[in-house]
Amino acid sequence: MTAPDPAALTCPAPLREVERVLLGHGSGGRLSAELIGDVLVPALGRAAPPGPLEDAAVFTVGDTDLAISTDAYVVSPLFFAGGDIGSLAVHGTVNDLAMRAAMPLALTVAYVVEEGFALADLRRVAASVGAAACAAGVPVVTGDTKVVGRGAADGLFVVSTGVGRRLPGAAPSAAGAAAGDAVLLSGPIGCHGTTVLSAREGLGFDAEIGSDTRPLHRLVEAMVAAGGTAVHALRDPTRGGIASALNEIARDSHIGVEVVERDLPVPEPVHAACELLGLDPAQVANEGCLIAFVAPDRADEVLAAMRSRPEGREAVRIGTATGVDPGRVVIRTGVGSRRVLDMLVGEQLPRIC
Amino acid sequence: MTAPDPAALTCPAPLREVERVLLGHGSGGRLSAELIGDVLVPALGRAAPPGPLEDAAVFTVGDTDLAISTDAYVVSPLFFAGGDIGSLAVHGTVNDLAMRAAMPLALTVAYVVEEGFALADLRRVAASVGAAACAAGVPVVTGDTKVVGRGAADGLFVVSTGVGRRLPGAAPSAAGAAAGDAVLLSGPIGCHGTTVLSAREGLGFDAEIGSDTRPLHRLVEAMVAAGGTAVHALRDPTRGGIASALNEIARDSHIGVEVVERDLPVPEPVHAACELLGLDPAQVANEGCLIAFVAPDRADEVLAAMRSRPEGREAVRIGTATGVDPGRVVIRTGVGSRRVLDMLVGEQLPRIC
Repeated sequence: MTAPDPAALTCPAPLREVERVLLGHGSGGRLSAELIGDVLVPALGRAAPPGPLEDAAVFTVGDTDLAISTDAYVVSPLFFAGGDIGSLAVHGTVNDLAMRAAMPLALTVAYVVEEGFALADLRRVAASVGAAACAAGVPVVTGDTKVVGRGAADGLFVVSTGVGRRLPGAAPSAAGAAAGDAVLLSGPIGCHGTTVLSAREGLGFDAEIGSDTRPLHRLVEAMVAAGGTAVHALRDPTRGGIASALNEIARDSHIGVEVVERDLPVPEPVHAACELLGLDPAQVANEGCLIAFVAPDRADEVLAAMRSRPEGREAVRIGTATGVDPGRVVIRTGVGSRRVLDMLVGEQLPRIC
Repeated sequence: MTAPDPAALTCPAPLREVERVLLGHGSGGRLSAELIGDVLVPALGRAAPPGPLEDAAVFTVGDTDLAISTDAYVVSPLFFAGGDIGSLAVHGTVNDLAMRAAMPLALTVAYVVEEGFALADLRRVAASVGAAACAAGVPVVTGDTKVVGRGAADGLFVVSTGVGRRLPGAAPSAAGAAAGDAVLLSGPIGCHGTTVLSAREGLGFDAEIGSDTRPLHRLVEAMVAAGGTAVHALRDPTRGGIASALNEIARDSHIGVEVVERDLPVPEPVHAACELLGLDPAQVANEGCLIAFVAPDRADEVLAAMRSRPEGREAVRIGTATGVDPGRVVIRTGVGSRRVLDMLVGEQLPRIC
């Protein structure tokens, strides 16, 4: 037996696997942030948006500040307790505008439909879009519909875009929070994610809970009326839950955040579902609540304004922004210990919105 | 043998098939118009847009007229001679705004990506979006990315939305054309559709031609500078080709249209491809030309302005708007006969844009 010729063992093609998009790249967690920050935004070159990535971008026309936001919805199943892909698309876009203190002026809706999709279901989704838009007081001014062959899409995807006008005297930004700010939360967490997961997997929790999907712009209007520029940062904790929202604000505002675990409002069915599935409620998606960083001397007024609205009735203070450990979010547990609340790395609940 | 009991022959469930979405519902032809007009828009209820459906919707903020348009792109293959899904998305949205005489202010881009899609291809598409946006002079201000599991989408879909500001002194509308108007066309037809089809099917025509995808807003700016309000109607003849564009304007403006066949600029490779495939070049998609209806006394000036721009260098007059047979488009053939140029009913070239 002769020794093998080392040259013959050399692979002619590099063995490194082609880099591919993973489910986690759409998670709203750290992989998402990397895809956006390392791939998508740099590739845009000079056409890239300036500054930190926000729920909506702000631009000025004449002397009016406008905001614009776009969101793709791929939720599965399309219909679930408390909502469907249509209402979700409208609320999600209205809420992204609201997080920049912008009230919606116009929405657009694009559908990508798989051949063979039931027309009755498409009609039902479109009616849900219409009802949600009416309730939010914003017209759907235009749209687009594309049909792809069987197997080229999973039923229906919806992409909504909204344009809004910013409230005068308010400029909340993910980069605007300051040490000392009170961290407020407008309502219970975890309902949307656990409901959709339960509906998809047939777990039965959605008999007790439903998605919290709803528009939040009127809540923001009330908060800004009460707090003005003291409302430093707003974010709706969708994909990635309050963990992602708090970490993004901590990162962009260069602050630490300390959250008190026992002050987090987690409904009992959400708690039970998360126990069963090994999920942290702080990392589960919401579609109808918001987190606010408010200057401490105005926090009580803003909290009172939130509680005066139906969608903020259960608003609570959950923590404080600090000057230590910028970019880090910690949770103080019931027994007095502290643990870091990290952003999810990858995908916990695919196709949750 | 006994006679069958008629009651036993009654089917317990209705035999009528469930209505389903067909590929043709995304064609840009008559089935598309029915889906939008009979299903999607009525379902919106009070949130529905007023008036005829246009390439972009117009709304007013303060004393500024803005336009907004959204488009879903599902083209297959993603890369083809002359462009890709990224440049197509930017140009398509810029052009829809331009058809309402609006110059682009801001774009958004949403990606729906299939798990396993090559990151290099995503980077290439994002770079193409960036390059096209830079060339058009408009920033991509925000976006969204969702990932769905393998088999739940075909690689990549892109949805772009644009907001633009209308040029003062211009208000083109699909409902604005009048009998007597000159019908102008900015360049050769059929290149995009035949290129994509050739790339998909490996027909080889795309060695000779390429997609005409390009932005048309500066062409429109020049036309409006020359013709002002005499530029009555503009449409870019994408899905469904000039046949759909002309029929939509004829319908919405209650006019007849007569087109002279020999004046239609059909490049030889497009002609050859259409002959082989049994297509009418007038029904094939374009992504870089426009049709204009212009008051007759200003048509020569507008045509000269079009020819002064690279993207309008081959602009021609192709016909006239008439007062007879409102809603009908006829073609005068080389031998002097006339035939009706209909909108496509269903899908001729699926996933062409």
